[in-house]
Amino acid sequence: MSTIIDGNAISLSIQEKIKAEIKNCMIRPSIAVIQIGENTFNDKYIAAEEKICNAVGVYFRLYKFDDNTPELTIINKIKELNNDEYVNGIMIQLPMPPKYNEKRLLNTISNGKDVDGLTDINVGRFINGKKSIVSCSALAVMHILEEYDIDVAGKHVVIVGRGKLVGRPLATLMLSHDATVTICHQGTVNLSDYTSKADILVSATGVANLIKKDMVKEDAVVIDVGLSIVDDKLCGDVDFNNVSKKASFITPAIGGVGPVTLACLLENIILCYNAKNTK
Amino acid sequence: MSTIIDGNAISLSIQEKIKAEIKNCMIRPSIAVIQIGENTFNDKYIAAEEKICNAVGVYFRLYKFDDNTPELTIINKIKELNNDEYVNGIMIQLPMPPKYNEKRLLNTISNGKDVDGLTDINVGRFINGKKSIVSCSALAVMHILEEYDIDVAGKHVVIVGRGKLVGRPLATLMLSHDATVTICHQGTVNLSDYTSKADILVSATGVANLIKKDMVKEDAVVIDVGLSIVDDKLCGDVDFNNVSKKASFITPAIGGVGPVTLACLLENIILCYNAKNTK
Repeated sequence: MSTIIDGNAISLSIQEKIKAEIKNCMIRPSIAVIQIGENTFNDKYIAAEEKICNAVGVYFRLYKFDDNTPELTIINKIKELNNDEYVNGIMIQLPMPPKYNEKRLLNTISNGKDVDGLTDINVGRFINGKKSIVSCSALAVMHILEEYDIDVAGKHVVIVGRGKLVGRPLATLMLSHDATVTICHQGTVNLSDYTSKADILVSATGVANLIKKDMVKEDAVVIDVGLSIVDDKLCGDVDFNNVSKKASFITPAIGGVGPVTLACLLENIILCYNAKNTK
Repeated sequence: MSTIIDGNAISLSIQEKIKAEIKNCMIRPSIAVIQIGENTFNDKYIAAEEKICNAVGVYFRLYKFDDNTPELTIINKIKELNNDEYVNGIMIQLPMPPKYNEKRLLNTISNGKDVDGLTDINVGRFINGKKSIVSCSALAVMHILEEYDIDVAGKHVVIVGRGKLVGRPLATLMLSHDATVTICHQGTVNLSDYTSKADILVSATGVANLIKKDMVKEDAVVIDVGLSIVDDKLCGDVDFNNVSKKASFITPAIGGVGPVTLACLLENIILCYNAKNTK
């Protein structure tokens, strides 16, 4: 039987650390979240972000725009937030409606407030091995492995998904920790040929139950970052009930990576806050 | 028997195209190469760069600094070249002596003249899927595969080496062309477990004869980007004589990727030149 990874416990311990840090701040760290259009997932995520911010004392502001808002209005709001010295982090909740120029909007965020680590310059600094802000989901995976003393050096890490929030930054983090990394995606032929070789398998696709028991190596570590809604129920990428019989460690779809990702968002806000306040 | 890839022929056809393009330029495109310290390899590379530039009509300038030169002197020279409207591309020949801050020097190059695609902002733009300048060696590998009608979509591409000039940018290019990508490196345990699964194997380590026949799958495509000097002779990463009996396509250490990389440098210079002249 697998060890089921307790993301809530990890999240709580990060929260405690941050709560203690914030206690000493005269001005509270703060984040501004921008929501564009309607999306059930985004509503859920934002509610969770607000809750965890409130729990530790990060000041949370939400700016909602319906999807008829001109792009320029949102850009001007981001610029205003860039210049607002009481805003430490700015995040656009993704995905945004496709009619908007996502790259342009993301790159309007000032690098020092880019808590998702998605601006060109932050991505470049990260890839070039400099200190920079890194996507919370990717950090969360590393946090979990560290917490459970799972060393990645020399291991074969297979990542399913090549997105900017998980796959790509996580591959870079894993390489920098000396893992051998394979990146699979929608274009991969015979996915199980790859997944079944993984010492550590990370799935971040949003395809419900993509990863079945026969696609996983005995005693593999299985980390499920994907979420989708099936029959009104939140579903992970991993067929948890069956894969958990084979994996050595496994994250549940709920209470696994999610709460750690939220805690990493707090860490990134503090990173931005401290960078600003030590200038 | 393998098809031996003729890098010289590919290079010549790119050179012809560029020569024709330059004919119409009133002001010749130009590159400034910065050499710091002594390095036999760098001498050879720079001589080859100068030769190919002369062959097509790119104006070539070399700035040599001995390794006692203060970093600030080199930085000031780069800044001067950034501001020189007759310089279209700037390249620091790597490796540089370790006592210099490589990241700082590279990031002094203006993004529009960064023909190696190594500044933070160019790397970030590239990773974020925007039009940008990309490392010549990585481009050369893609060029070769295209020239020989080798489609990478759905193929398993194994890259040995995670450096900034080949491994990392090539992985991104391959992913954007729908290959499934594995990145191996010095920390990889049982390298042949990975290389023997590759449909397309790219080695870029500089370890002579690292890739032996028994590490390669029957009919694999083998691309050798590495070079080292053994007994005064230039040596590739691939044991060519034996691996060529098994591969479907293979590049020789000399006359393979090298000349195509030089031709891609010319393309990057023209890219910088055109971007400047169409502003």
